[in-house]
Amino acid sequence: MKVLYYGGQKSGKSNLAEKKALELSTCKPYYLATYDNSFNDKEMHKRIDKHKLQRKEQFNTIEESKDLLKVLNNQETFLVDCMSMWLFNNIQEDEEYLVKQLEHISKLDANIVFVLNDVNCGVIPFDNQSRKFVDMTGIVGQKLASFCDEVYEVKLGLANKLK
Amino acid sequence: MKVLYYGGQKSGKSNLAEKKALELSTCKPYYLATYDNSFNDKEMHKRIDKHKLQRKEQFNTIEESKDLLKVLNNQETFLVDCMSMWLFNNIQEDEEYLVKQLEHISKLDANIVFVLNDVNCGVIPFDNQSRKFVDMTGIVGQKLASFCDEVYEVKLGLANKLK
Amino acid sequence: MKVLYYGGQKSGKSNLAEKKALELSTCKPYYLATYDNSFNDKEMHKRIDKHKLQRKEQFNTIEESKDLLKVLNNQETFLVDCMSMWLFNNIQEDEEYLVKQLEHISKLDANIVFVLNDVNCGVIPFDNQSRKFVDMTGIVGQKLASFCDEVYEVKLGLANKLK
Repeated sequence: MKVLYYGGQKSGKSNLAEKKALELSTCKPYYLATYDNSFNDKEMHKRIDKHKLQRKEQFNTIEESKDLLKVLNNQETFLVDCMSMWLFNNIQEDEEYLVKQLEHISKLDANIVFVLNDVNCGVIPFDNQSRKFVDMTGIVGQKLASFCDEVYEVKLGLANKLK
Repeated sequence: MKVLYYGGQKSGKSNLAEKKALELSTCKPYYLATYDNSFNDKEMHKRIDKHKLQRKEQFNTIEESKDLLKVLNNQETFLVDCMSMWLFNNIQEDEEYLVKQLEHISKLDANIVFVLNDVNCGVIPFDNQSRKFVDMTGIVGQKLASFCDEVYEVKLGLANKLK
Repeated sequence: MKVLYYGGQKSGKSNLAEKKALELSTCKPYYLATYDNSFNDKEMHKRIDKHKLQRKEQFNTIEESKDLLKVLNNQETFLVDCMSMWLFNNIQEDEEYLVKQLEHISKLDANIVFVLNDVNCGVIPFDNQSRKFVDMTGIVGQKLASFCDEVYEVKLGLANKLK
């Protein structure tokens, strides 16, 4: 089963996605962290540490910032938190490559819960990089939504089922 | 019948709006492109060409970037893609003029499917021009929603009926 | 009873919140304006005057930009417009203090209708101040949503009940 949680910054989507992954799994699920730790962003490190504590002992944490197919596999349950970081880390790749990765992922016989940031409802940014990130978020989001069994929009900690 | 599709950047709203226009029309509907071609924006031209190909032979394409009443008329089916471009091209006009245009449009005995970008859920921009665009998007959107028979919010290619 | 209206810029949320406050109150409700008048922002003053006229004689207006507990009290009906301004005026405070204020407010035996701006679905801003504002909007919004009896998302003047 594949599930997508989509929502704005600090909407509570990761929390709900964690609960879902725990519900879906029969044994300890994997938490796939896509954040690239090689940057020295202290604020981000604090956030990550806070998240890790919150997850406690309920998940096996694995890290992969670019090639998800290296670590995802059949017969397991994964929480991918988040697809926006994966996209950010792959922003130099073209649309075709990214959509192809998602198609391969869609065929895995695994439970996968995806988290994606909604960045698409603000003023269209001027700089090309941000604009590409916004556009690709839409394209990646539509692709994920097309093959996920359930899709939730999250606002204020509350989930609204879109599919 | 009048229908509004509202959604963020790359949400899939134009696709759904095209399907709706084709459903509503008994003969070949009109695609009203509001983009002002006089700017030399290559990235935008690529997008437009891609859209045109996608629409193939199903629509008659007409172009009008400012005065929609010049081209809209009774007894036909129109897809206006998009109202955000129309607003952008008319941003020097005052609120009263724009709302009046919409009121005239609301009285046409035609099928009209409107597409509008949601730009209202990000941080309020600093510059006056962007701020006015955001505010006027809200005002135009509320006006359209008030007279449309159906209103859909689109996220990730999925439509959520608001009215 | 406590109710939250959450929506983007010019979504029509204040209008709907006003109607709700009037419905809930048995005598003249209070309009709690959180805007800090000490700034000399002319555009904002115009907006405020327009709002005041719209509310006419239906509300008693009180002003408090920082400490809501000074003016909120039991057995009355309040419309707090808006919590985003309150947050903005308290942005120097830490998360703990703000969440504590909200917990105190949640325990009041009063009807309170809250208005909050959705600023969370755009590109994450670069500057620290805006980023904090976005994050804290999410945290404040989740807290409000957790204790409110009803929560509405507003788009295009239309309310979608989330809780």
